[in-house]
Amino acid sequence: MEKIKIGITQGDINGIGYELVLKALEAEELTTLCTPVIYGSPKAAIYHRKVLGYQTSFQVVDSADMVKDGIVNMINCFGEEEQKIELGQATEEAGKAALVALDMALEDLKARKIDALVTSPLNRNTIKTADGDAFIGQTAHIENAVGDGKSALKIFINNNLRVALVTDHMPLAEVPAHITRESIAEKLVMLHNTLKRDFFIDNPRIAVLALNPHADGQEEKDIIAPVVEELFKRGVRCVGPYATDTFFSNETYKHFDAVLAMYYDQGVAPFKAIALNDGTNYTAGLPIVRTAPAMGVCYEMAGKDIADEQSLRQALYMAVDTVRNRTRFEAERSNPLKKQYFEKRDDSDKLKLDQETEES
Amino acid sequence: MEKIKIGITQGDINGIGYELVLKALEAEELTTLCTPVIYGSPKAAIYHRKVLGYQTSFQVVDSADMVKDGIVNMINCFGEEEQKIELGQATEEAGKAALVALDMALEDLKARKIDALVTSPLNRNTIKTADGDAFIGQTAHIENAVGDGKSALKIFINNNLRVALVTDHMPLAEVPAHITRESIAEKLVMLHNTLKRDFFIDNPRIAVLALNPHADGQEEKDIIAPVVEELFKRGVRCVGPYATDTFFSNETYKHFDAVLAMYYDQGVAPFKAIALNDGTNYTAGLPIVRTAPAMGVCYEMAGKDIADEQSLRQALYMAVDTVRNRTRFEAERSNPLKKQYFEKRDDSDKLKLDQETEES
Repeated sequence: MEKIKIGITQGDINGIGYELVLKALEAEELTTLCTPVIYGSPKAAIYHRKVLGYQTSFQVVDSADMVKDGIVNMINCFGEEEQKIELGQATEEAGKAALVALDMALEDLKARKIDALVTSPLNRNTIKTADGDAFIGQTAHIENAVGDGKSALKIFINNNLRVALVTDHMPLAEVPAHITRESIAEKLVMLHNTLKRDFFIDNPRIAVLALNPHADGQEEKDIIAPVVEELFKRGVRCVGPYATDTFFSNETYKHFDAVLAMYYDQGVAPFKAIALNDGTNYTAGLPIVRTAPAMGVCYEMAGKDIADEQSLRQALYMAVDTVRNRTRFEAERSNPLKKQYFEKRDDSDKLKLDQETEES
Repeated sequence: MEKIKIGITQGDINGIGYELVLKALEAEELTTLCTPVIYGSPKAAIYHRKVLGYQTSFQVVDSADMVKDGIVNMINCFGEEEQKIELGQATEEAGKAALVALDMALEDLKARKIDALVTSPLNRNTIKTADGDAFIGQTAHIENAVGDGKSALKIFINNNLRVALVTDHMPLAEVPAHITRESIAEKLVMLHNTLKRDFFIDNPRIAVLALNPHADGQEEKDIIAPVVEELFKRGVRCVGPYATDTFFSNETYKHFDAVLAMYYDQGVAPFKAIALNDGTNYTAGLPIVRTAPAMGVCYEMAGKDIADEQSLRQALYMAVDTVRNRTRFEAERSNPLKKQYFEKRDDSDKLKLDQETEES
């Protein structure tokens, strides 16, 4: 049986990308779990390996067809072309290289030559698109490239805490207008399906946060509470809206499989206060599996051997697990006796909402 | 020398108030540090003491003039009147009693018969004012009663993390309109002065959070960054705006004496994720000293001996420290050679902003 192939992009060569990748892959055990395929510049990797004094070995191959199990593979995305490495600097050259490596990995992911993608951090401000426009961010770029028209749902993950967002990175003043029954229902269903299919949790429990402090505003009454109630009736086990502050002081999140926050800082700030730099970013809702360390390029740490690779290692494990879970999920549901296999929790007959994802 | 007298209100008799108070005061050492004066119902206290099986002894006195050092005093706020205790229930009777005890303590605080006030949690929804209006909340009520026209600034405190807010409990949709150069400057100056006078930190360092995720919105450019820069020039050592998520993932707050958040959940949710129920609520900006455990009435825990009294104990210590710090601060500044005493950090000549509080 072939191992699961995990593509790993180099990210920004002036940041901590290669430090995370090389440190995580230094442990040889990883190649018994999956087959890592780095997309990047071998010369840049060797430069970082030398500066940081690591031992990680890898074998350069020309294409994903040549990838071998049992070793760390690297696909050379640049031929003879070299990039100048300026540790800790935001440069257009590094931005361009990050995009080239990402796009090559996405091509292979689309062609199913690799099974999942782990992306290293890049700096969106150093990247210009072919049309000279600003880069829309790694997740949105991936969504456009391999999303098959589906929209992505970011989930921040650490041990028992999973946080998803109704609205993503947008000005705070625009958030309230985007909090609608439709937007919440859409994300709740996506989150529910993701927990079932990608994390293999039967009948997952979801907590929904309030928009307003103390959960006592108009939106809680008019929008959030009714949609939570409606979706509960439709089989999504969601509860809320919870006041954000006591939700975290009482560690209420430990009773749930995931939390749906209304806006970015509401969900991500408490998440990061708990997870620090040990969180993983999961891109749900797409036909492909993509994970990432929940870290930035961290220019100030570049080349210093002080970055914590735990987040990237977790991203790798999660990618492997998710590919396995999806395979198992599909397999069990293709069996006519499926109820015997996977419906372990109560209420499961109500769960009719996973149709869409099951087809994808 | 007389000990510092700390008034402690009973809060909601159906909640965890008496459990916190009796547990914290069970340690006799506390009466060597200060003289505790409970405002409440001796009968209710005895009921809770019996249910919970504590040993805490207290002596009932009729007024603050009779208070003695070296023991736990209780001022009977109800004469022969008795309240029905219904553990875990929100009742109007308990709400009314909470307000009576609070108001008696505020009278004595105003008359300087006690030096500071620690308030136990109450349930604002059980309280009606004399006019039948909704109760505005404990802090706002205290501000009106003893604020001398000054407005209060809530600071959430735990070990090295202090979080203050530009806007308090208000609908999220109204927040952006309240983020102005004036409102931020006002809170920054209050926070600066409080850190100096109440916490005795020379030349305190303040981090200012952004309004928008990633700190890349219009308000950061137009409002927050300019006011931070302006106040820095005027002697308030503030830095920002910081993106909220990485501010907490990188534990950047450890480099600062306090953090100014733009809105409630932005500051309080990460604070509580870190502090859990071990935080203290400090009411800055008023002529009097008031602290409180950063906890609610926790009806579900009432009478079960499971509430953590650490937060109330910290609130007591903080009240004592603050009274001492204020006394010391005023004493040193009344000395014509003051520079020899208290200006230990650099840049201190720039600090001209503490005039207002020094007068109060």
